[in-house]
Amino acid sequence: MIGNLLKKRIILASNSPRRKELLRNLNLPFDVLVKDVPEESFPPGLENDEAAAYLAVQKASYYMDLLYKDDIILITADTIVLCEDRIMGKPSGYEEAFNMLKSLSGKVHEVITGVALTTPGKQEIFDSVTKVYFKDLSDEEIDYYITNYKPYDKAGAYGIQEWIGMIGVTRIEGSYFNVVGLPVQKLYSELIIF
Amino acid sequence: MIGNLLKKRIILASNSPRRKELLRNLNLPFDVLVKDVPEESFPPGLENDEAAAYLAVQKASYYMDLLYKDDIILITADTIVLCEDRIMGKPSGYEEAFNMLKSLSGKVHEVITGVALTTPGKQEIFDSVTKVYFKDLSDEEIDYYITNYKPYDKAGAYGIQEWIGMIGVTRIEGSYFNVVGLPVQKLYSELIIF
Repeated sequence: MIGNLLKKRIILASNSPRRKELLRNLNLPFDVLVKDVPEESFPPGLENDEAAAYLAVQKASYYMDLLYKDDIILITADTIVLCEDRIMGKPSGYEEAFNMLKSLSGKVHEVITGVALTTPGKQEIFDSVTKVYFKDLSDEEIDYYITNYKPYDKAGAYGIQEWIGMIGVTRIEGSYFNVVGLPVQKLYSELIIF
Repeated sequence: MIGNLLKKRIILASNSPRRKELLRNLNLPFDVLVKDVPEESFPPGLENDEAAAYLAVQKASYYMDLLYKDDIILITADTIVLCEDRIMGKPSGYEEAFNMLKSLSGKVHEVITGVALTTPGKQEIFDSVTKVYFKDLSDEEIDYYITNYKPYDKAGAYGIQEWIGMIGVTRIEGSYFNVVGLPVQKLYSELIIF
């Protein structure tokens, strides 16, 4: 099964160093190709829990010209944070990051990563949902984290693998790597049968 | 609160590079001191879920001579894997590793890390339990993992942060870092009030 996969050319369309690192750990050869595409927003009327998959498919649409041969598999992904029916993407600056972390403090939220696998002939879309529990974060802890780690490229303004995740996350339910940015176990299973 | 902690001298008594790395991520200064102590076994009659804490306390007993001043905090820890009432420590070689992973395949098990914080005057003991769900692992996957990653220094014969964790773990419930080897969030909370 893995043998067949090794004959394909896998392209990861993502700038995220965390996604690259996670995919690398699957020990499958792949290339990273990133175009300068706009950060998408999603249309009103879409259910919150469908947003991540929608954005992954949107991203894929910018890369269709790369899929000139049937043995190429394009991987696109998008991660959102969902807390009390509010979707959080990447914070625009310190203040929004602070407010996001303040909202997550002492609560459980969901991290949803949507993934699209695309070839010239077909597309498989899936997502993974992980519940993340934060302890009560003090203003000092939030300020220390944002000032030192500048989490402006991260949905919900935090990286679970960074200091704030170490001191603040009491529990998760679901895939840890999904919170880091890519549900690698599900991705591996889907790639094998794709 | 963190200020008080910075005045203490923290000693981690562990050879595990993963524990060192996790503790480092808390951004607290600490030293690593390791004695050549025997791998403990635990007495019969002990409940399985008490074994990790028992072993952490046992380890601490070898280091009491280091605690000559009140501002020194010693951290000792031990991680075990508990699957269907069977405790798994580190595998002795390929065959035991293979059998352990075969036992974990397609099932849920518990990873328990016991931690002891010790000063000359007091000791705080706690543990953290994480449920880990493995998909059905094929013999080829188990063999590939053991041959390439040699998980002989790991309880239950796997590292969740390695290839087998990426492709095999479908879900966890609890602390991820606890499975890696140290429940850093709980440790941080306990250190602050210790």
